[in-house]
Amino acid sequence: MSQARHGSHSDGCSKDDIVGVIAPNIHATYEMHFGVPMAQAVLCIINHYYDVQTLSDVLTNVAPKFLFVDHQFLQLTQQALQTVLNPPILVHISDRTPPQPEHEPARADYESLLRAADSYAEFEVKYPEDECEAISLTFTSGTTATPKPVVYSHRGAYLNAIASILVNEMIQRPTYLWTVPMFHCNGWTFCWAMPAVGGTNICQRSFSAKSVFDDITRHGVTHLGGPPSLLNMLARASEEDRKPLPHRVEMMTGGAPPPPQVVLELESMGFRVLHCCGCSETYGVATLNYWRPEEWDTLPPYERACLKARHGLKHPLMEEVDVKDPMTMRSVPADGVTIGEVMMRGNSILLGYYKDRAKSERAFEGGWFRHGDLAVKHPDGYIEMKDRKVDAIESGGEYLSTVDIEKVLYSHPDVFEAAVVGVKDEELGKVPCAVVKLKEGKVGDEEGIVGYCKERLPEKMVPRKLVFGEIPRVGSGKLQKKMVREMLV
Amino acid sequence: MSQARHGSHSDGCSKDDIVGVIAPNIHATYEMHFGVPMAQAVLCIINHYYDVQTLSDVLTNVAPKFLFVDHQFLQLTQQALQTVLNPPILVHISDRTPPQPEHEPARADYESLLRAADSYAEFEVKYPEDECEAISLTFTSGTTATPKPVVYSHRGAYLNAIASILVNEMIQRPTYLWTVPMFHCNGWTFCWAMPAVGGTNICQRSFSAKSVFDDITRHGVTHLGGPPSLLNMLARASEEDRKPLPHRVEMMTGGAPPPPQVVLELESMGFRVLHCCGCSETYGVATLNYWRPEEWDTLPPYERACLKARHGLKHPLMEEVDVKDPMTMRSVPADGVTIGEVMMRGNSILLGYYKDRAKSERAFEGGWFRHGDLAVKHPDGYIEMKDRKVDAIESGGEYLSTVDIEKVLYSHPDVFEAAVVGVKDEELGKVPCAVVKLKEGKVGDEEGIVGYCKERLPEKMVPRKLVFGEIPRVGSGKLQKKMVREMLV
Repeated sequence: MSQARHGSHSDGCSKDDIVGVIAPNIHATYEMHFGVPMAQAVLCIINHYYDVQTLSDVLTNVAPKFLFVDHQFLQLTQQALQTVLNPPILVHISDRTPPQPEHEPARADYESLLRAADSYAEFEVKYPEDECEAISLTFTSGTTATPKPVVYSHRGAYLNAIASILVNEMIQRPTYLWTVPMFHCNGWTFCWAMPAVGGTNICQRSFSAKSVFDDITRHGVTHLGGPPSLLNMLARASEEDRKPLPHRVEMMTGGAPPPPQVVLELESMGFRVLHCCGCSETYGVATLNYWRPEEWDTLPPYERACLKARHGLKHPLMEEVDVKDPMTMRSVPADGVTIGEVMMRGNSILLGYYKDRAKSERAFEGGWFRHGDLAVKHPDGYIEMKDRKVDAIESGGEYLSTVDIEKVLYSHPDVFEAAVVGVKDEELGKVPCAVVKLKEGKVGDEEGIVGYCKERLPEKMVPRKLVFGEIPRVGSGKLQKKMVREMLV
Repeated sequence: MSQARHGSHSDGCSKDDIVGVIAPNIHATYEMHFGVPMAQAVLCIINHYYDVQTLSDVLTNVAPKFLFVDHQFLQLTQQALQTVLNPPILVHISDRTPPQPEHEPARADYESLLRAADSYAEFEVKYPEDECEAISLTFTSGTTATPKPVVYSHRGAYLNAIASILVNEMIQRPTYLWTVPMFHCNGWTFCWAMPAVGGTNICQRSFSAKSVFDDITRHGVTHLGGPPSLLNMLARASEEDRKPLPHRVEMMTGGAPPPPQVVLELESMGFRVLHCCGCSETYGVATLNYWRPEEWDTLPPYERACLKARHGLKHPLMEEVDVKDPMTMRSVPADGVTIGEVMMRGNSILLGYYKDRAKSERAFEGGWFRHGDLAVKHPDGYIEMKDRKVDAIESGGEYLSTVDIEKVLYSHPDVFEAAVVGVKDEELGKVPCAVVKLKEGKVGDEEGIVGYCKERLPEKMVPRKLVFGEIPRVGSGKLQKKMVREMLV
């Protein structure tokens, strides 16, 4: 790690240079989280699931000085760079022995750079001059629009990394399995959190339900995290892929609220699901669902899982999180019914969108950061997210929560996963429709599933149309609702 | 708690006013840690063990606008105030129903003030304008000189409170027994740490070995802390006072390194001792002895306890801690032998000494805070404190560590506790002498104990004189070496 920094440093990397990385969750990607900031440069881990066009757009916009590329994504990157006017200096990250000097200059290989660097003792860390300087650029998920680079500061990263430790109840020497992509919020800032607690990182190029269960057993994994799709994958893993857990494993999830049924299945296996909410703009976690054992431990399992799916409260290092009426900027009543917009203030909120002043100003309108999440506030003060503003279905003059409809679909015994979107309707504006992926061996029975929903939802919330198929997702695992919509029209 | 703040706030407490408190570890003292800063005032918890003269000096120096006094210390305070020129407004903290208006104006009683205050909903928190503004004044222990008020900032208190959570491995909802006095570094900043983890505070006016074991059982205490004298008290509690621990209890200790024998006894009872070092100037914890299970778990118990007694490494939120030669300001070699001075830099180091610019400048000479601790650095980077600079015995041209001599005395089967100081000697400058308190029922055998030391220490380190009696301590539990010296000449 110490030498990784030096690798960037001595090779002409200077203050505020952007160092791009296109690589999966391998040790080099992890190490760059230290080497690059210690050279006063700005780290930019790029989503390796981008297509050539998106990657090309991102590289043109961000214009990194160096680009470290894992061999697996070299071809993709070279294609994308064909349309980039000022291409970066490429450094290969190779799994094999570094290439021989006669084939390729040594400086272009990550491991060779490290070997050529001075020792740790001689390396001088270049600290930021101001703690609010940029430490990294990270990208919004792109579920609703083109990915936008978000600027993180040293101060924000420091505080959110500590918050990640606290909310995950990490004590000394956790073992963290890297199922959260490092390109997503720098792995929810866990890249920086782990050394503070003497943690061990288990890096994997890719993973499956089987590999996750194997890693937990083999390496004694104590913590991992991921979007609801990861939870679903583990909860519904086949008997051959599963292994009994050797101890309780803490699993942090974020993004959309996890369907209660999935939480229930995971907890019966020995995971403890911690439901956090946040987004790229909040460095990962912003709120979490603090458990209230004295009131909730005795509830029936499904009710417990419903409570777990709530947004909860701000984490201890976030200053303020509230649900407000965006017109009046007044807090909504804590009645569990009135929908408002989630707004936040604090240290671990983006400095701004890179090179986009107008978007930055809009995001902080009224002095609060708003991400476009619609939620209610319960009498106990806990927030429950109802939808992304852009996802909520405006139907017959009111908002319908796609999340509430998905919850019912997930509880159906044949359903593996489901996604609900609004589809245009002449009479009502929009009506709910769903894409459903069935469990293996099940046959699509639209009528049966719709009937099941009718028994459990008000008429207006019952999906008008069901399509059976794969649910489209972006690289970070979040639903790509735009593509779901295309499947339904 | 919410109303406590308001109590101070509406009663004419304004920005930067100093609010003094003379009270033991009761709920009011705890609440003031929130009420006072939320009114932009500065909290000053005063050691209630001071004698009239010291208290009078401290009150004259600090000049609080308000002084909240527990009924137990009212008489002491009124005596001390007789020589204070501008006496503060007194507010009583009463255990009983507040006094009736006809006897005494209601505003002078803490609980009446709270009742008269507005509700939480109407209360407006006054945040500091700058995070480096003062949050509290706290006093140096006064083991070596008159207690000096140290200024803490909001920023430093925030970060050290989080560090206290991390180093104590506190997960959600710990139960903390208040054996550390709140007047000492605001209870090592645990006053502010507890709400961040949803903790329960067990406040006790005073405590004994029996009450500590009772509280652990009755309230499910998970964490407590205190100086080595507390550890000793618990380790050597009589059979009637002890209770078996219902679960592992984390015990943080600081100040002098705990004698290995004591650590050993406590761990066999089910405590886990965490040895931290720090001082009033570092908000409590500055370094801690991170345990290395893979190397140390298999060592014999006494060797394990010796390792545990080391200073260790900086905590994760402290920037730098080093052992340096104060003349050259170069780090001493990590050889476990070369003695240097402990120096630190970071956020949780005092802003300065109140109204004492000269002392503040001396403390930060060379750009590092130095507290006067002498230590060595081991090959693994861990620091081991050898002595306070003022305590180390300069004998025959070299420093002798009183700590190393005390370790041997503590391991003698008859010894309850021991304190070693240097006493003037014509030939060598100073020679080590000791005050020893024996276990109950034991008879002082000076020759036997000196002989025991001779078998285990180099000749120059063997105490020349032993006196049997009580070990004098200051209010925070630290040894008062000045008085030990007086017992030996």
